[in-house]
Amino acid sequence: MKELTLFLEPGSKRKLYEQIYDYMVTEIRTGRLLVGERLPSTRSLAEFLSISRSTVDLAYDQLQAEGYIEARPYRGYFVCHVEGLVRIEPEKEWEAQPEPAPREQFQIDYSPNGVDMSQFPFDTWRRITRNTLNDDRLELFSPGQPQGDYSLRSTIARYLHSARGVLCEPSQIIIGAGNDYLLMLLRYIIGEGRSAAMENPTYQRAYRLFSAMGFRMCMVGMDAQGMRIDELEASGADLAYVMPSHQYPTGVIMPIGRRHELLRWAEAKEGRYLIEDDYDGEFRYRGKPIPSMQASDRSGRVIYIGTFSKAIAPAIRISYMVLPEPLMERFHSQCGFLSSTVSRIDQATLNEFIRDGYFERYLNKMRKYYRQKHDLMLSVIRRWAPDFTVSGAHAGMHLLVTANHGLSASEMKLRAAAMGIRVYTLKELTIREERLGLPPHLAADRTVVLGFGGLKIDELRAGLRILRSCWRYA
Amino acid sequence: MKELTLFLEPGSKRKLYEQIYDYMVTEIRTGRLLVGERLPSTRSLAEFLSISRSTVDLAYDQLQAEGYIEARPYRGYFVCHVEGLVRIEPEKEWEAQPEPAPREQFQIDYSPNGVDMSQFPFDTWRRITRNTLNDDRLELFSPGQPQGDYSLRSTIARYLHSARGVLCEPSQIIIGAGNDYLLMLLRYIIGEGRSAAMENPTYQRAYRLFSAMGFRMCMVGMDAQGMRIDELEASGADLAYVMPSHQYPTGVIMPIGRRHELLRWAEAKEGRYLIEDDYDGEFRYRGKPIPSMQASDRSGRVIYIGTFSKAIAPAIRISYMVLPEPLMERFHSQCGFLSSTVSRIDQATLNEFIRDGYFERYLNKMRKYYRQKHDLMLSVIRRWAPDFTVSGAHAGMHLLVTANHGLSASEMKLRAAAMGIRVYTLKELTIREERLGLPPHLAADRTVVLGFGGLKIDELRAGLRILRSCWRYA
Repeated sequence: MKELTLFLEPGSKRKLYEQIYDYMVTEIRTGRLLVGERLPSTRSLAEFLSISRSTVDLAYDQLQAEGYIEARPYRGYFVCHVEGLVRIEPEKEWEAQPEPAPREQFQIDYSPNGVDMSQFPFDTWRRITRNTLNDDRLELFSPGQPQGDYSLRSTIARYLHSARGVLCEPSQIIIGAGNDYLLMLLRYIIGEGRSAAMENPTYQRAYRLFSAMGFRMCMVGMDAQGMRIDELEASGADLAYVMPSHQYPTGVIMPIGRRHELLRWAEAKEGRYLIEDDYDGEFRYRGKPIPSMQASDRSGRVIYIGTFSKAIAPAIRISYMVLPEPLMERFHSQCGFLSSTVSRIDQATLNEFIRDGYFERYLNKMRKYYRQKHDLMLSVIRRWAPDFTVSGAHAGMHLLVTANHGLSASEMKLRAAAMGIRVYTLKELTIREERLGLPPHLAADRTVVLGFGGLKIDELRAGLRILRSCWRYA
Repeated sequence: MKELTLFLEPGSKRKLYEQIYDYMVTEIRTGRLLVGERLPSTRSLAEFLSISRSTVDLAYDQLQAEGYIEARPYRGYFVCHVEGLVRIEPEKEWEAQPEPAPREQFQIDYSPNGVDMSQFPFDTWRRITRNTLNDDRLELFSPGQPQGDYSLRSTIARYLHSARGVLCEPSQIIIGAGNDYLLMLLRYIIGEGRSAAMENPTYQRAYRLFSAMGFRMCMVGMDAQGMRIDELEASGADLAYVMPSHQYPTGVIMPIGRRHELLRWAEAKEGRYLIEDDYDGEFRYRGKPIPSMQASDRSGRVIYIGTFSKAIAPAIRISYMVLPEPLMERFHSQCGFLSSTVSRIDQATLNEFIRDGYFERYLNKMRKYYRQKHDLMLSVIRRWAPDFTVSGAHAGMHLLVTANHGLSASEMKLRAAAMGIRVYTLKELTIREERLGLPPHLAADRTVVLGFGGLKIDELRAGLRILRSCWRYA
């Protein structure tokens, strides 16, 4: 037997067979054991090391399975030609220099995108994921349907019907990894050369994506009920992107009358569509919930988009789009060849989370939590009258505060920042390169946006106390 | 106390407090308990039901947490205004009619897209996922970096360097949910009005996506070394999409000389880029592995794309794109606002799977498995000479078989189908609407493609035996 420098460490965390495996791999990789060379027999190595032969067998099996050695009948184990073996090197210098994280310089950040994860049922999610990964569900590791798995689409259809009044079949639903991706798909479904009407301010990401996709952008003004129909008509647009449940960021909730006017606009000409982004439709705190606009659509003009990123967690990259029947044909011909962007494991986990009632419970619980935050914010800021007016209330996760005593929004932001508090001016949420189209009750220069979703009640209260005192005088 | 019709079932699977909870929810939803109505006190209800008061407390806490009831100090529990509560209805009729699955009519399917999942370390993947979901990693449920998490990008950079010779920093890597999505992003990064050179046959999905994105398509012929440079020059293209490690479906491996010619083509004019799709670069069975073309790129002209769908599992929707430095600026300005399409949980799981060495082991094991299948196929089909010639060997998961005794590919397909075996004609993998540009050794009308990735050794052997006998005579 060739001289071996193998010493086992019986107390090590690495098992004995792994130590043998590691040793042999190193010998092979460094060329101390050459291609074609014979390894010691399992019996002689076991004797040499004073261990059981089965331990050596285990190590040799592993080496064989990974292509380092091969067994030749009656002759023993030989080193294979291993030049092609994949080998991942140990970490390099760049590991020591991770990209700088944005410095946290605010104690309290009233971000309108904050989400409260404190009540998320991690244990349940973990348990469902674990079950999902059971051996008997091998099919989850194979490719699924391009639209997303039927069972999840069916569950989403039921949920949307119950919670948002959306009327659709599972066959009309497309599941995708985030709203951005679904809007990219939509571009291929509805075709190019489109003119898209949007409000300003609106979702900046949607605006930037539509522009990047080559849509002609038509900015349309708002009144207290939402997008203005006269301006929409005049714009020449054939698409209108709206958030009727709770416009972002103005907080306007579109009443039923305006929704019907929008639907009539869409019906008036072939090829017109409404894109309804129902990003936080689940969170309404007062009065009867208004169903989605899709629920009133009788002629297949509404493309409905929603996401689980707000209602569950931002990291859950699962959104859905409900297409009117006639567009499904276009989907199949234009995008039917693309694979789904959501892993089937995630789809199955979410499906069970909804189906077993956890989502319903979580949503109801979170609505209560968010409502508490909302109510606190509203009651405190209302006491600041007449110096300040609050608007955009009763839904979602942010409020708008307009100063009436001469303080500008940028001054409000500066003073807040000096106290370690981050607020957002309405202006910074607008599309700079386009004209503003605000509803009349919102003065762009004097309005700030306060999100409350991601902050604790105590933080909200403490922050408001500080804001009140630093905004007291103009 | 109002009359209660609540009867507990002590032997039920539902816990006692859940039974109380269920009962109250039903009473509230059906309007038998009205808004503002007072619930029985916890003490009186516990006495009435002869159970412990803490059980009732638990039920009421749950009801309160979900917004059904509220506690008023010194007064008791009252039903809330619950019209807005989300409620997901029980399953509807459509659940009974799932979409018809494509009927499995072949016993043996030599699909070129098959992947062998039999060796996948499910237990390890499960364990890592479970650890990933630990409570102390709450940050995974918050939004991550648009490019993907730094730690995973850093791990991928190391892997690509070791396994494929790719030279890049983590800052040049973009992680996305599948190649399709990354190609969609690329369209926004490199801008519109592009002309893309492709071979025919090539990946049909990439072709269709490029067409849908509005690229002018330039079909370029192949010789035995891959894409022809003279035709590429003449085409006027400013992008060339190639698979140098193993062209799909012709199986051509591009030698180093042709790679350098392609690089020189790209360097010759500003704005030219090569898209290197390294879809199965990990699987090469003979000889020294050829590094990626990106490894030879000195002037930032190669856009490198790879995926874990082949090397791990199709359901793992994680691909990556390595951009040359100058294009990163374009990425940040054009796509930096988009969220990542891959959940951070999946990113963290994959990162640990690679970092802890499981991927390396799995890859080496799978290469051995696939090589066994490849070697079997090759040795059997070679014995069919001179009637048949085999090509495209020594890499990937498919081979090409050309008939020399007068049998047509469509006849081969028909005869195989009659025996329950599915094979693919080279023609059906081509882009129909474009002219063919095959290397001279492949006769389109007499060549079929046999994938072996997803079939077991026994199936491969049995299938070949049948094919041999039914293809024996022309």
